[in-house]
Formats: sequence, C-alpha cells, structure tokens
Amino acid sequence: MFTILPIKGFIDSIDGFYCDGIHAGLKPKGNKDLGFIYSDTLCDVKAVFTLNKFQAAPLKHYQNYEKDFQTNFVLVNSKNANALTGQKGIDDINEIFSSLNHEITNPIMSSTGVIGNPLPKQKIIDGANSFDLSSKNGENLSQAIMTTDAFPKTCLYEVKLEDGSSFKIGAVAKGAGMINPNLATMLCFICTDAAIPTEDMQELLDVNIHTTFNAISVDGDTSTNDTVLLLANKKSNSYDKEAFKEVLRLVMHDMAMLMVADGEGAKKAVAFEVINAASNEEAEIAAKALSNSLLVKTALFGEDPNFGRIASTIGASRVFCDDSKLVISYNDVVVFNKGEIVFTKEVEAAAGKVLQNDKFKVICDLGVGEGTFTAYGCDLGYRYVEINADYRT
Amino acid sequence: MFTILPIKGFIDSIDGFYCDGIHAGLKPKGNKDLGFIYSDTLCDVKAVFTLNKFQAAPLKHYQNYEKDFQTNFVLVNSKNANALTGQKGIDDINEIFSSLNHEITNPIMSSTGVIGNPLPKQKIIDGANSFDLSSKNGENLSQAIMTTDAFPKTCLYEVKLEDGSSFKIGAVAKGAGMINPNLATMLCFICTDAAIPTEDMQELLDVNIHTTFNAISVDGDTSTNDTVLLLANKKSNSYDKEAFKEVLRLVMHDMAMLMVADGEGAKKAVAFEVINAASNEEAEIAAKALSNSLLVKTALFGEDPNFGRIASTIGASRVFCDDSKLVISYNDVVVFNKGEIVFTKEVEAAAGKVLQNDKFKVICDLGVGEGTFTAYGCDLGYRYVEINADYRT
Repeated sequence: MFTILPIKGFIDSIDGFYCDGIHAGLKPKGNKDLGFIYSDTLCDVKAVFTLNKFQAAPLKHYQNYEKDFQTNFVLVNSKNANALTGQKGIDDINEIFSSLNHEITNPIMSSTGVIGNPLPKQKIIDGANSFDLSSKNGENLSQAIMTTDAFPKTCLYEVKLEDGSSFKIGAVAKGAGMINPNLATMLCFICTDAAIPTEDMQELLDVNIHTTFNAISVDGDTSTNDTVLLLANKKSNSYDKEAFKEVLRLVMHDMAMLMVADGEGAKKAVAFEVINAASNEEAEIAAKALSNSLLVKTALFGEDPNFGRIASTIGASRVFCDDSKLVISYNDVVVFNKGEIVFTKEVEAAAGKVLQNDKFKVICDLGVGEGTFTAYGCDLGYRYVEINADYRT
Repeated sequence: MFTILPIKGFIDSIDGFYCDGIHAGLKPKGNKDLGFIYSDTLCDVKAVFTLNKFQAAPLKHYQNYEKDFQTNFVLVNSKNANALTGQKGIDDINEIFSSLNHEITNPIMSSTGVIGNPLPKQKIIDGANSFDLSSKNGENLSQAIMTTDAFPKTCLYEVKLEDGSSFKIGAVAKGAGMINPNLATMLCFICTDAAIPTEDMQELLDVNIHTTFNAISVDGDTSTNDTVLLLANKKSNSYDKEAFKEVLRLVMHDMAMLMVADGEGAKKAVAFEVINAASNEEAEIAAKALSNSLLVKTALFGEDPNFGRIASTIGASRVFCDDSKLVISYNDVVVFNKGEIVFTKEVEAAAGKVLQNDKFKVICDLGVGEGTFTAYGCDLGYRYVEINADYRT
C-alpha cells in the first residue's frame, strides 16, 4: 500500500534539486529563454528521445556519454533547436560546456525552437555563466523553456510508503506544436529523490511512455528534439517499484494532458477511446487515426457532432470493423448505433452540448473483439494556422 | 506511334455518350445536385473504389453485379453520401432504380456528401424521371457532382493512331476535401469509345492510379465513397494498348491535379519530389509524409521557406536518411545542402519568391539510393478550417 499526494511546488521542492530561468537574449522583449536544473549530488539519468531520424545535436551529444553515466547539470534553451546543424551543432555544445565556470559533471543540453540555424553560442555561455546554481526558481525555468506554449507545465507529487518513508517526484515540461503519437517538440524533465535502482529507471520510463506521451497528438508531426529525462538523486532512501511506476505514470500523464490542452490554438482536449477492437494494436491504430484526422479536428473546433467523419476515419485506418457492429458516442450520447439511424434532432442537440465542453470523450465501440486504446488530441482552428503560418520552427 | 490531342468538349462529345445535371432539391438555392451518364449501347465498365473499410452503399450495390457486367446508366447525386446507412442504403438504391421509367440496364449509382443520413429517395426518383437521356450537357453534370469544389473538373482527348483510326477519352470529376493518398471524396467518371478489350480496362486503371489519384493529398483523409469508373462503349474500332495507357494516365493526372489545385481553401499546388531514396517505396513514404504534414502545409500557406519543417518531416517518416547527405530545394533554390549552412538572407529571399507562385516543387534529394516518388499536395490555410468547421460531411 502507498499514498500518492499532489503537492504544491516545483521540482526544486525536491531535496537537492535547484533550478532557474533567465533572459539570455535569444527571445525578444526580455522573455526568459535559458534555464538549468542543478543537483548538489550526482544523479542517475535515463532518457527517451524522438524517433525522428534527424535527431538534434543535443540528443547526439547525450548519446556520446557512456551507459549509466551520472550528471548534475541540465542546460535548456528555447528559440533555437540546434537541429539539422551537423557536427558543428555538437561541437557548439561542447564549446559551451567547456566555457562555463560552474562545477559540472557530464552536463546535458536540451534545446527547442527553430531548426537549421547555428546556436547563438556566446549568448548562451554568458547567460549560463550568470546562473546562481543555488537558486530555487522553478517557475522561471518553466517559462524559459516555452516556445509557442500558452502556459507553463509543471507538477509535483509526494509518495508515502507503508514503512513510513516517503519520496517526491516532479516534472517541468514544454509542449504545444508538433506533438504527435511518437513524441514531438516536447521536452519533459522529471526529477525525483526516490531511491530507485538504476535498472528500474529506463524500464519504468518505457512502460509508461506508450499510454502517455505516445498517446497524444496535436498535429501528427514528430520533432527532431523530443526528450524525456528522468533524474534521480536518491536522497530519500525511500522506494517501492509499484508506487514509483504508478506515480511516474501520473506525472507523465499530467504533462501529456497539459500538452494536449495547450495544443497550438486548441480549445478542447479530447479523449478518443476505441474499445472492443480486434486487438490492442488495432485499437491504437484507430484511436490515433482519430486524434490525427484533420476532418475530425476541424469538426470538433466547429462543435459539430459529425459522426460521419468519426466513422469514415476509423474505416480509413483499415482496422477490422463493420458498420453493423459499430457504436459511436460523445460521452454518454450515442450518435451511431450499428447502422440504425439514431441521430434525431434531440440526439444531435445533446451531442452538440457535449462538444461545447473543453474536455470530453469520443467513444468508438468496434464490437469485434476486446482490444482497447485511448489517444488524446485536440481541436484545430484558425489559431493553429495563424501560429504555424508565421512561426519559423 | 500515336498522337494525343487535348480537345474542347465534355464526355458527351464522345460518340454514344449522353449526360446532364439538374436541381432535384437536395442542395439549397436551386443548385444542381443530380446528374447522369447514359450510353446508347451497353458499355463495359471497370472501377477502382476507396480503401476505406466503411464503403458507402453505392459501392456495395455496384459490387453486387457479376464480374464483367455491362451498363448503360450512371446516376450521380451530391449532398448525401449514402454512407454508414447499412442495408437500407442498398435497398434505397434498388428502390430508386426500380422506380425509374427509363430503359436502363444494370444501372450504377454514385453519391457524395454528408455521411450517415438516409437518401432523400423521392426527390431523387422524381429528379431522375425528369431526365432527358438524349441530352448532351456535360457542363451541367460537372456542376451537379460538386460539393465544396470551387470549380468543375473535366477533360477530353483525341488519340490518333498510325493506322489512321482514332478514339476519344474524357472525364468528369469532383474532388476538394478528404483527398488523400489512397483516394478520397473524389468521384471520377471516365468515358471512351476506344475498342479496348475488357481485360485491359482494370489493368490500365490499376497501373495508372498509383502515380495519379493515389499520389495526391489535400488533408490525409480517405472517404467512404471514392470511385473511379471507366466506361467503354467501343464504338470507334480504334485501339492501341500503349496509346490508351498513356492517354488514360494523362486523363487521371489531369483530374488529380485539378483536385489538388482545388483542395479546400488551397492557393498553391505543390509537387513533393523525393529523389535518391533507398527505394521507390521509401521515396513514396517520405513524399506522402511531406504532402500530408500540417506543419509543412501551413508553412507553405505562410510562404515561409521553412526547410527545417521539410527535413523534420522526412526524419519523422523514418525512411533511411542522413543529414550529411540531404539536399533540399524549392524549385532550383537550394536551401539545405548536406548540413552546410547555405540559408543566407539572399537564399531565403530567393526561396520566398518561389513560394509566392501558385505552383512549385519541393525537391528532397536523400542521397542514399535511387528511389524516387512525387506526391502532390497543397497549402492549408484559414479557409480550410472555415469550410470544415461548418460543413457536415
């Protein structure tokens, strides 16, 4: 038995972790654009990276470290992704770290922003040298890593075990555009003082990523820079594998849901629940097809209970299905029932009401097996076009 | 040797084919919504249908005929797709045809419009009974099959063979939304008087579909109703397989390009040419990823020569690639060259100029093999959202 409590605070509320964010001159108008996470002891670290074939320079830099390396410093910048920058991108990171006057070991860099431009190296060096590593300013860090995000994304939990011991775990993330089922321009830094064995870290990250970050979609694109880092300083002497697995899932789910709610221009966070598919794999294919369909997303934006587009998208995903077995509902309002015409004016009005919420479910019962998967997505409106016609990613 | 000449006229300029379109009361404001193609002799007919698992009732009705059946009548309505309507949808079609007072054999129905509503049967029966089957009003038919199309889509060719004989081939189509790499809400009716052997008809349709209709994308969705029909009355006694294959490709390419140019709200028709991929299959995966990427489409709308999004999308498609071998160009302007920074202010300006055209190429040389594929797509702007937030498909 264990208890998980959401608590107030940032990752710097965890013993031994420090962080801050400053304006280093990468963003205009004095906005924060450079931040750090510092640990006063060496941390174990594990990561999950984008599946994009053009991994950005910071990801390649990280992967040059030996397996099971330890670190005490993560440097994060926004406004420049250091992606598609070749060997120069990696050399730049090494030059930045060798120019810093802090006591750091195996430092990690993480970047988000425009692809294909060289890093503004000197600004980053000057900014990072001005850091006070004893700062505890989680809010500043959460702002410094934002690009087109509308709000910062953080969470913090305390876990109490039966033996009376406890540990904390928290995260800070950025999301918004380019979010898709296989990670996206999303950065998520998770810190914990749990006494987690190194061998559990990657395992539990991998277990949870499938139903959290890999289940969300804003626009179906997968960026070059996606990174989830788990840093463990193990200061608490408290650990239970089941408890950690569960709280890690919560942390990753929280961050994923905040990313969906903050999809560029999105007003609605929608859970696409596919049940009774031929297999879990087929449920996942259909659910992700729904969360990625432009026609579905624009219908949601228009608050149009357009079950035809839902059905058509499932059919187009080519999973095993049959319209005489299909049932489609918005929350508990059934709009299509095995080919019978149930879409009366009353049902249409009730379904339209559901769509006016900023959070709801689209449930598709394929009626052909026991497979299930839930994908999370959002609507797509004018604001998405506006952001992406202008923003040089 | 043969000569292919584009000529003026509609499919009714081909000996023995008749067509018209009328207002039967399905669309508001007196707009045309019901049309027909009639042949004064029986035609061989072959079809290619959507890969969507929920094929609409008209497609199921067609597939109830025996292989190699002949027909003299195609009835087409817009505004209602007769999709997701179960057995009733098929019964409705049979009832409509049995209520017509024309001499028709093995009639074919084709529908486009809103999914999930029962057909307005009586309006269609009344409308079809008012048809004059000796009409030659191709323009009316081309308008009657439009939904969100901005303009009608037709073409006509004459083919002269070395032996002095000649035949004609023409098409009428609708496209616009839901266009994607595996057909979409696109209907295309191709008529010819070529003396084509029945066994060549399906073969040549299938050969040409891959590089024409299956290479275009407006929004990545695949409809329940997509249909390409080839009707051959064989009145000309003229045929050459190579000539027919080539002119059929031209007809299908013409119709596909008009659909891309008329993508909902689209202002730009873009060819995504992937060359030197590891294989043709990989080139196709990458090219279609580009033509379907929201981030690429919105950047094109913003006339932003954003090669970072092009590269990122190729990487995200997970084909074999390497940034030290990748070259990206807009027409002849190289914006990314194997990791070197070539994107100067001058290059950016020149690339921006290319993007102001309403037709251009994005060429991605992966430099890792000899595979090649060209996908065709369009930009995506506010108008797409406007159309699709309002239109009940």
